[in-house]
Amino acid sequence: MNNNDKISPAVIRRLPKYYRYLGELTKMGLNKTSSRELSEMTGFSASQIRQDLNNFGGFGQQGFGYDVENLRNEIARILGLDKKYKIIIIGAGNIGQAIANYTGFYEADYEVVALFDKNPKLIGMSMRNALIKDIDELEEFLNVENIDIAVICTPKSVSQQVAEQLVQCGIRAIWNFAPKDLKMPDYVHVENVHLNESLFSLTYYYNQMNKKKSE
Amino acid sequence: MNNNDKISPAVIRRLPKYYRYLGELTKMGLNKTSSRELSEMTGFSASQIRQDLNNFGGFGQQGFGYDVENLRNEIARILGLDKKYKIIIIGAGNIGQAIANYTGFYEADYEVVALFDKNPKLIGMSMRNALIKDIDELEEFLNVENIDIAVICTPKSVSQQVAEQLVQCGIRAIWNFAPKDLKMPDYVHVENVHLNESLFSLTYYYNQMNKKKSE
Repeated sequence: MNNNDKISPAVIRRLPKYYRYLGELTKMGLNKTSSRELSEMTGFSASQIRQDLNNFGGFGQQGFGYDVENLRNEIARILGLDKKYKIIIIGAGNIGQAIANYTGFYEADYEVVALFDKNPKLIGMSMRNALIKDIDELEEFLNVENIDIAVICTPKSVSQQVAEQLVQCGIRAIWNFAPKDLKMPDYVHVENVHLNESLFSLTYYYNQMNKKKSE
Repeated sequence: MNNNDKISPAVIRRLPKYYRYLGELTKMGLNKTSSRELSEMTGFSASQIRQDLNNFGGFGQQGFGYDVENLRNEIARILGLDKKYKIIIIGAGNIGQAIANYTGFYEADYEVVALFDKNPKLIGMSMRNALIKDIDELEEFLNVENIDIAVICTPKSVSQQVAEQLVQCGIRAIWNFAPKDLKMPDYVHVENVHLNESLFSLTYYYNQMNKKKSE
C-alpha cells in the first residue's frame, strides 16, 4: 500500500493549483517561497497549505520555507505530470474538438491520439495530429493501442453506453464532459466536468448580488 | 439581508446536481422522492441532502418525502434558473466557440448575444445566432447592451486585463475558462473552470491505480 492512498480528494484537487502558482513564481525568477506567500496567491490558509504538503512529507523547512523548483517538481511527480499520457476523445463535436485543440495542457505530456465520432461528415478530418475515426472502429483500435485516458464528449444520451464500452476495452481513467454522472465500477476513475453546474452556481451568486443591490 | 447569504458555497455547488437528478426522476414519471433515493442517485448522504435542503426551508415532510416537481422548481428558483440571462463570450477560439454552440444549457434561458475576438479571420462570423465582433467594440457594446454574464475564453496572458475591462463596463458575473485565477473586487463573482486541474486530478488517480496493480 502507498501512503498516498489515504490522501483526501480535496487535497488532490488543491495540488494542481499549487503547481500552477509555483510555475508563476518560477517565471518571476523566485527560488524560495513560504506557506504565507502561497496562501496569498491561492487563497487557501497557510496552515491548510502546510497540512496539505505534509501529507507527502513536507518539502519545507521550518523558518526557511520552500524551494520553489523542488516543490514544483515534487508536486508534478505526485500528480504524475512527469509521465506521458495517450488520450482518445469520444465525440468530435464542439467540446471534443476544443479539447483536441486545447493548448493549455502544456505542463504535462498529453497526446491526443485519435477522436471517434459517428458523423460521416467528421470522420476522416484531422484535429492537430489526431484523426477523427469511425466510432465503430473503437474496439479494434483499443485492442491494438495502449490508451491511458478516454475523454467522453458525446451527448449524455449515449455517455453511459460509451463509458461501458471503454471500460470493457480496458480503459480505467475517464474524463467526462457529458452532463450526466457515469455509473462505473470502483476500479475506474472518472473526473467530471459539469459545465452546467458551474454556470448555475454563477447565476445563483449573480442573483444574490442583485437582491442585495435592490434591498 | 437574505437568508441565502449564509449558505456555504459547497451547498450551492450541490444544488445543480439535485436539480439535474430531479429532472431525471421527472422524466421517469416519478412524483415523489426521498432523501434516501436522492442519496443513491447523487452519492451524497441522505442526512447531507436533508441538511442542504433545510437551508432553504426544507420542502419535504417527515415520512412523506419530497414532491419531485415542486422541489425541482424550488431549486430552479434558488439558482435563478427561472430567469433569462444575456451572455457574451470573450475569445472566439475553440473553447469560446464550443461554449457558444453548447446545447447543454437547455434548463435555463441563456442567450449568447455576441462573441468578441481580435482575430480578423473570426470577426464577422456567426455562431448560432451570435456574431463574432471586434474586441475593440466591447466597451461600446456594453454601454448599450445589458449583459448579465461574461465568459472569458482568452489566452491566460490577457485574461486579467479583459476581466478588468469587463468590470469597468459594469459586468459583475464572470465565467472564466482561462487557466489563471482572476484578481477581482468582492462585488464581482467569478466561477472558474480550470480544465487542467480536473485533468491533473485524473492523472493522479490513474497513477495510484497503476501503482496498486504493480504492488
